[in-house]
Amino acid sequence: MAQKMRAAIFIEPGRIILGEKPVPDVGPLDALIRITTTTICGTDVHILKGEYPVASGLTIGHEPVGVIEKLGSAVTGYVEGQRVIAGAITPSGWSNASLDGCHAQCGAGTRHGWKAMGGWRFGNTIDGAQAEYLLVPDAMANLAPIPDGLTDEQVLMCPDILSTGFSGAESGKIRIGDTVAVFAQGPIGLCATAGARLMGASEIIAVESLPARAAISRKMGADHVVDFTKEDPVSAILRITGGRGVDVAIEALGTQATFEAALRVLRPGGTLSSLGVYSTDLTIPLDAFSAGLGDNKIVTTLCPGGKERMRRLMATVESGRVDTGALVTHHFGLDDIETAYDLFAHQRDGVLKVAIRP
Amino acid sequence: MAQKMRAAIFIEPGRIILGEKPVPDVGPLDALIRITTTTICGTDVHILKGEYPVASGLTIGHEPVGVIEKLGSAVTGYVEGQRVIAGAITPSGWSNASLDGCHAQCGAGTRHGWKAMGGWRFGNTIDGAQAEYLLVPDAMANLAPIPDGLTDEQVLMCPDILSTGFSGAESGKIRIGDTVAVFAQGPIGLCATAGARLMGASEIIAVESLPARAAISRKMGADHVVDFTKEDPVSAILRITGGRGVDVAIEALGTQATFEAALRVLRPGGTLSSLGVYSTDLTIPLDAFSAGLGDNKIVTTLCPGGKERMRRLMATVESGRVDTGALVTHHFGLDDIETAYDLFAHQRDGVLKVAIRP
Amino acid sequence: MAQKMRAAIFIEPGRIILGEKPVPDVGPLDALIRITTTTICGTDVHILKGEYPVASGLTIGHEPVGVIEKLGSAVTGYVEGQRVIAGAITPSGWSNASLDGCHAQCGAGTRHGWKAMGGWRFGNTIDGAQAEYLLVPDAMANLAPIPDGLTDEQVLMCPDILSTGFSGAESGKIRIGDTVAVFAQGPIGLCATAGARLMGASEIIAVESLPARAAISRKMGADHVVDFTKEDPVSAILRITGGRGVDVAIEALGTQATFEAALRVLRPGGTLSSLGVYSTDLTIPLDAFSAGLGDNKIVTTLCPGGKERMRRLMATVESGRVDTGALVTHHFGLDDIETAYDLFAHQRDGVLKVAIRP
Amino acid sequence: MAQKMRAAIFIEPGRIILGEKPVPDVGPLDALIRITTTTICGTDVHILKGEYPVASGLTIGHEPVGVIEKLGSAVTGYVEGQRVIAGAITPSGWSNASLDGCHAQCGAGTRHGWKAMGGWRFGNTIDGAQAEYLLVPDAMANLAPIPDGLTDEQVLMCPDILSTGFSGAESGKIRIGDTVAVFAQGPIGLCATAGARLMGASEIIAVESLPARAAISRKMGADHVVDFTKEDPVSAILRITGGRGVDVAIEALGTQATFEAALRVLRPGGTLSSLGVYSTDLTIPLDAFSAGLGDNKIVTTLCPGGKERMRRLMATVESGRVDTGALVTHHFGLDDIETAYDLFAHQRDGVLKVAIRP
Repeated sequence: MAQKMRAAIFIEPGRIILGEKPVPDVGPLDALIRITTTTICGTDVHILKGEYPVASGLTIGHEPVGVIEKLGSAVTGYVEGQRVIAGAITPSGWSNASLDGCHAQCGAGTRHGWKAMGGWRFGNTIDGAQAEYLLVPDAMANLAPIPDGLTDEQVLMCPDILSTGFSGAESGKIRIGDTVAVFAQGPIGLCATAGARLMGASEIIAVESLPARAAISRKMGADHVVDFTKEDPVSAILRITGGRGVDVAIEALGTQATFEAALRVLRPGGTLSSLGVYSTDLTIPLDAFSAGLGDNKIVTTLCPGGKERMRRLMATVESGRVDTGALVTHHFGLDDIETAYDLFAHQRDGVLKVAIRP
Repeated sequence: MAQKMRAAIFIEPGRIILGEKPVPDVGPLDALIRITTTTICGTDVHILKGEYPVASGLTIGHEPVGVIEKLGSAVTGYVEGQRVIAGAITPSGWSNASLDGCHAQCGAGTRHGWKAMGGWRFGNTIDGAQAEYLLVPDAMANLAPIPDGLTDEQVLMCPDILSTGFSGAESGKIRIGDTVAVFAQGPIGLCATAGARLMGASEIIAVESLPARAAISRKMGADHVVDFTKEDPVSAILRITGGRGVDVAIEALGTQATFEAALRVLRPGGTLSSLGVYSTDLTIPLDAFSAGLGDNKIVTTLCPGGKERMRRLMATVESGRVDTGALVTHHFGLDDIETAYDLFAHQRDGVLKVAIRP
Repeated sequence: MAQKMRAAIFIEPGRIILGEKPVPDVGPLDALIRITTTTICGTDVHILKGEYPVASGLTIGHEPVGVIEKLGSAVTGYVEGQRVIAGAITPSGWSNASLDGCHAQCGAGTRHGWKAMGGWRFGNTIDGAQAEYLLVPDAMANLAPIPDGLTDEQVLMCPDILSTGFSGAESGKIRIGDTVAVFAQGPIGLCATAGARLMGASEIIAVESLPARAAISRKMGADHVVDFTKEDPVSAILRITGGRGVDVAIEALGTQATFEAALRVLRPGGTLSSLGVYSTDLTIPLDAFSAGLGDNKIVTTLCPGGKERMRRLMATVESGRVDTGALVTHHFGLDDIETAYDLFAHQRDGVLKVAIRP
Repeated sequence: MAQKMRAAIFIEPGRIILGEKPVPDVGPLDALIRITTTTICGTDVHILKGEYPVASGLTIGHEPVGVIEKLGSAVTGYVEGQRVIAGAITPSGWSNASLDGCHAQCGAGTRHGWKAMGGWRFGNTIDGAQAEYLLVPDAMANLAPIPDGLTDEQVLMCPDILSTGFSGAESGKIRIGDTVAVFAQGPIGLCATAGARLMGASEIIAVESLPARAAISRKMGADHVVDFTKEDPVSAILRITGGRGVDVAIEALGTQATFEAALRVLRPGGTLSSLGVYSTDLTIPLDAFSAGLGDNKIVTTLCPGGKERMRRLMATVESGRVDTGALVTHHFGLDDIETAYDLFAHQRDGVLKVAIRP
């Protein structure tokens, strides 16, 4: 009889409960990892609220830190007991999309090999990480050993937040000497700020109203933090840049207001790098777009995954280039995950990210 | 007393007339060219209709082919009498934008060196090419000698149509083996089709309803031409691509309908390369954008200019890689330019482009 | 008892024989394909001559066209009997190198996930394609279905020659309007010429002395063919380009003489894209390199592989963008492969490529 | 009668003297700047030693900080008395090379518009900056106003050292998480280290034997400094990287030994970014190059110039992203420049860079 495990299960909109499930069977390409630390993402809250639909009964969560419990029969190169992470996005490596470098749109199992958001499987199309055990598909493409000396908490942001935040800077192709605006300084926006700093931006303007987040933002690399409740961020950014605008604007919230403001602060030829998960149609105002003649770019990025990405991110943590310690504000056991969801969903008590330890 | 010349002058919305103006004085960095052939652009029709505002009294036109009449005192490297073209966009070369490779957003004379659409001067912010003489600013950056053996008409599309059309393919970063859709097969769309073919697209799907344009489209490189009056182009393109969608969709009309359709036919991770001049706000439907998680890009391009760009384009004409002969459907003298505008603005008689010879 | 099959086996330098081997067992990630057509590569001749060392007893060949005979237990998405090709390079998809897009340097099974030339396995580190059956590792990343309507011979060049040749143009980042030189018009050079044409080069200068190859070169896209036995190719290319030099020079032979000539014909800032397999140290003459201050690039590329690459290449064949028919000059049965090697190694009878049919 | 000024003049190999010359006349596109601070470059020592030939009588130096004394008649956008720098490389902006973004190979005045190293004019083909006054050609493309609050010495490294050093990292296309080696920590190598750090390298290994330079190297961003007199740098770097090698190796000395070592420490697919000025032919050992099949790149870069580049570099200084203060180890008046050359050429007294104030 299958062993049982605890897991955070989506039942219906408004209801994620701690329930019990069988520990999964391990297929030839899979690995089973025992979760030692995980966390809750803003996307999980979208799921909780019913804004992003998933199947009832699904285990939620896509940010695993753990230990290899069991390896599939065709998996080589790892040993049981090894500490690993896997990205929120788990590309197959072998789909057409993945082979073309477009891992997040991995269409493993589809006719053409491309699927929108197909790389996002944990807590979306297969059971996720908020559980005692997690089955990692295409394990050889996804399990990244944790360097000795790094704690779970030091690498906890790598699977999603750090990868996504950095990708905002990377997709914006920030260059040494660029001026960059980052809209919203939640966990992803803060990592985008860190990414902009890491890539050589010489002036970073963050937009955030919460003083605690503004303080962390400065630590992550922001030179200015504009409080949008006190002044119009578009005006403020144009003032700070002497009317020129920014080379790259990173949107890290997912609203029409921030999307539009990000467009309006671009210099001609500038790039809007969008990270937000939107829930409405977007409008591009004609005047903010030079009628299509401004040589502007709008680029979107879904969290890059795969073990090589994870290795690189952990290397930046290991070398001290980025410190995400300040992002983990609260700790919970898995048994208290419903409380954790409640806190996180309502953004109480200055929460940025929670660490959940089964 | 200044010599006089004939010119097509914008008076007020609805009214471009053939009038008389002084032949311009030549400043140290300028060149005066005697126009031998020019043409009318769709943008000029926007100006005529008052949809794009320019100053009353301005000479219209931005597609010059001519002969150097007089060189500014600081201009070297050319001789009077030389046959030349200049791009529709005339970057300074020395603005910050231009030095950064963003020639079309050249901010020569501005505080920061960047200006939205600043590289477009002819028939926009300074007198244009539909005249007997044209003053070319920053002549050393903009005058491109015509290779021996090429006729005026062979290079007439280089200043704008060919440069813009090709840039749709270039900004889309088309790769060998890509599938590409091109929305609308007017002059720019046809050149975008030619550009997609030149860059190695292995399957090109054009969208166009006029049979004459569809026929030219096939000659320029389209493998399929979808008649949007007979079937929904999104469905048709998804059918042709077996449900996968296209790697790059080029928008060459400037409407919400084509913009949105271009988004909807993209494969995950695909790029919308937009060439259209829009006249309304644009909507990005949430579902056509994977809520921001599809790794999609929207890139816009204003016609690349400058003499090196013109040299390259004329090289493709000279080597027979592209033949824009079929695009010039009608011929007029400058004296008949009002008739030409009437024909062109109403798209009568199968007109694609007109050649105007002063 | 294992079924037997015929195979071209490397015994020792100077000796590749037709021998017998067991049909391989199929592991969980593998596929066994029955070869219907294959060919001999210049690299195989290096192996034959002992210039490139492989293990005695190895089956040679890396250009398979065939039919799926048996699928590994973990392989999904294919059916037995399906017509497929696999690239000469078979990346795992899941190594760090592969996940980083560097498929040819795939280090599957190594500690770090990178290995020089690690993606080249067939006929190098595992048994190859000149046999009745071929075991394809990491089958889901490598088996590419052949589009209906394409013959074996039409796709026979895709696994190596076309992929390598095109990559010379791609790694050179050829742009519309570029001038390109291609040194040597053997099978790879001819495909490099085709690739340069496909990417929009407006002037292609091939270097080749054999009249038959020169004729095919013109069909593949060359505008000029310089016979290096009649004039110095560096002088000729500088003359043809009016002293400017070429934007991109592709080296497709693998000698110091062609490498050096390719450097010398570059314009300042130009790129040498090297495809050759060298057998000696190379010298970069100081004066051909502007003492390191010429903004030049030297880029090397090993044949891109993987099923998505193969799909794209077959798409260019299917759409008629490239026709490699003229490259297959001779046909042999597998039983005659020793004769085929003899002909090919001595470049007799105008041979370009041979088709071998088991 | 022309006013006279003091200048450091190359007479013959071994002899640069402080002499007198007329203050230059100002042409329409020029600006005359009064030098307030300048410095000596390693290249000037090559000139002094006769290893790099320039005309007898030429004023040496290409790193100007000064004040606008007089503007050419066609120059707009500046005022006399303004504090400015100009890059070591002064592109025209209007040559074909410059318009194509290849500013350092600017061929202003040549038939084709490309010239190897053509952007380097100061102290090479026209009089340079080690003088009381300097004539800046194509002033509108080259004069970059110094931000208020920055001292001469803070921006003194921008014209050459910082621009060149950073370009080593930029041309290497360093990504977040890369491992980078930098060979030699002279002024350019130190700035390359700073550039690698600015672009997000997570592990930087510098090679240098002088303890003072090693100490500055760590401040500029190196994680490890390998003393090549104590251990073989190739072995050391392979050991530090666990056998994998580096993603990017930057050569900042200009010798066969460092060039070859840089090749040998590359991971498969890695890039050698070369900054050195070589004085001999270079050898690429076959085994260090995977016989041409390692997907390696060798890229060279000449110091990027032009006012936009200078603006960007000064922005990184102004924001505190880089501090070149430690590089200026000695100060001299122009009258003592012969002493300064003697100190600098013999690398006495721990000199890195000298500040020369007329």
